[in-house]
Amino acid sequence: MSLDRLIKKIAEKQNPTVAGLDPKLDYVPSYIKEECFSKYGKNLEGAAQALLQFNKGLIDNLYDIVPAVKPQAAYYEMYGWQGVKALAETIKYAKLKGMFVITDGKRNDIGTTMEAYATAHLGETDIEGKMTEAFGADALTVNGYLGSDGIKPLLNICKTKDKGIFVLAKTSNPSSGELQNLTLSESGETIYEHIGKMCEDWGKELTGKYGYSGVGAVVGATYPKQLKELREKLSTTFFLVPGYGAQGGGADDVKYAFDKNGLGAVINSSRGIMCAYKKQNANEQEYAQAARKEAIRMRDEILSSVGEIKLQK
Amino acid sequence: MSLDRLIKKIAEKQNPTVAGLDPKLDYVPSYIKEECFSKYGKNLEGAAQALLQFNKGLIDNLYDIVPAVKPQAAYYEMYGWQGVKALAETIKYAKLKGMFVITDGKRNDIGTTMEAYATAHLGETDIEGKMTEAFGADALTVNGYLGSDGIKPLLNICKTKDKGIFVLAKTSNPSSGELQNLTLSESGETIYEHIGKMCEDWGKELTGKYGYSGVGAVVGATYPKQLKELREKLSTTFFLVPGYGAQGGGADDVKYAFDKNGLGAVINSSRGIMCAYKKQNANEQEYAQAARKEAIRMRDEILSSVGEIKLQK
Repeated sequence: MSLDRLIKKIAEKQNPTVAGLDPKLDYVPSYIKEECFSKYGKNLEGAAQALLQFNKGLIDNLYDIVPAVKPQAAYYEMYGWQGVKALAETIKYAKLKGMFVITDGKRNDIGTTMEAYATAHLGETDIEGKMTEAFGADALTVNGYLGSDGIKPLLNICKTKDKGIFVLAKTSNPSSGELQNLTLSESGETIYEHIGKMCEDWGKELTGKYGYSGVGAVVGATYPKQLKELREKLSTTFFLVPGYGAQGGGADDVKYAFDKNGLGAVINSSRGIMCAYKKQNANEQEYAQAARKEAIRMRDEILSSVGEIKLQK
Repeated sequence: MSLDRLIKKIAEKQNPTVAGLDPKLDYVPSYIKEECFSKYGKNLEGAAQALLQFNKGLIDNLYDIVPAVKPQAAYYEMYGWQGVKALAETIKYAKLKGMFVITDGKRNDIGTTMEAYATAHLGETDIEGKMTEAFGADALTVNGYLGSDGIKPLLNICKTKDKGIFVLAKTSNPSSGELQNLTLSESGETIYEHIGKMCEDWGKELTGKYGYSGVGAVVGATYPKQLKELREKLSTTFFLVPGYGAQGGGADDVKYAFDKNGLGAVINSSRGIMCAYKKQNANEQEYAQAARKEAIRMRDEILSSVGEIKLQK
């Protein structure tokens, strides 16, 4: 019901990071693409198979050191239902290897529809009494613009199936302040702060052993001031922190996301890990080893700011 | 680049409504389910095929009188990638029949990722030089919480491929006010109003022949006061209005969404049309005819409040 399963894996591996799997075809080594195109055709099916092979190679080389992966739904949808099939198979494979899977879908809708999203991504679909997992991730990112109606169906599934969500609070992109930084007359708070407080509220009945609930928040590494402010104000909300690496956030920025035990956040890197072989000028056959090397570098860099991760409240 | 293709179809058919295709398995007549389960198994594949058959029957009986359909992504994702395949095939079938297709995905993300969503749902995916439509809808609903970065990639596709978007402003659900009705210190405006103004701004270079741009807004029928307020303030923003029928909005509520020419909005009904056969106590074999009957009733009811739809500025 909380994010304890993720937190335990983070402490076990002493690694508070998550590998983003946002596999644009451009990132995939050509030998994989050629193999898949010749087998399935130069079409959505071939492209989707290439993404899946690419992901499996990454997962094989990361699962023993990185606690979680975060596939970004957009990059799978871009390759049609075939891409979405690759998403489902990526999730399955990562779970098989013991990783915690956060589907980055930023889903949002009215209550009845959100129930369908919750079922799709975290729950089980009822096919006339036969319960079947559609995607089966461990956590889902969501957007809170519609208020509590759009969050409540998720809380039920967090409770009954030990899953989690991350609600967008302060996103990592340059224009995030256009709306999120505006101040509310009613409370004098910014919008991102208001959403942060709603997360604390939504998480109330979902608090786990280490003090954090099943309702996390997304707060970007590119805004360290806000990261620090929210960490101080939101004591039970675990953070998913994008924006490290390619988007410009560094270890000094993300350290504010953590509490005194080194808990409280998981830092995402997507392009930094997926495209490490390009940056390291490695042979493309070595893309997964290059990703592992970068994941280790990132872990060590962040740990050196954060210190040992201790499993206590 | 604007929503003119939709507007023209609305005027042609004298029908400012859209049929929501949110096919829960419970809504599908049992003879369709039985046929699909026996052919494909009682699994995600069988369920997805049942949704597709159900949708095709609806489309066959609506396309000559209803200008548009709005499939809701959540209800397809609930049936796994197989369901998402049924979504892709539903979109294709509706377009083949000449309908305008609005994919209701409420997608949102940072710029680079939003480019992937824009490509997925409205554009063409580049598979090493081979351009392929992944889902190919005419318009997509989106959430503006991330600001301009998350909208701009969509504007490019609206411009180059004559597509449209609808940004969530004031949603139809009971808790929409929790965030959307709060007032901003900076301007004294509500959040939904602020988003509405951003729509006007984003749409500036996308204005069409009838005065409306390619950037529409979602405004719920359940909030007629806000609907009226926004119609008065946003002169170039076309509205997608959910919440009619099952959610409680009536013809007297939605009339405020229209301008003096009967343009300016398209009203959605999902359950009302899909489940019309249940309400009419019709034989389930007649579900599509019942849907047609309800679609005509809805059209006539709304037209009687709105008057003749005239194609002028």
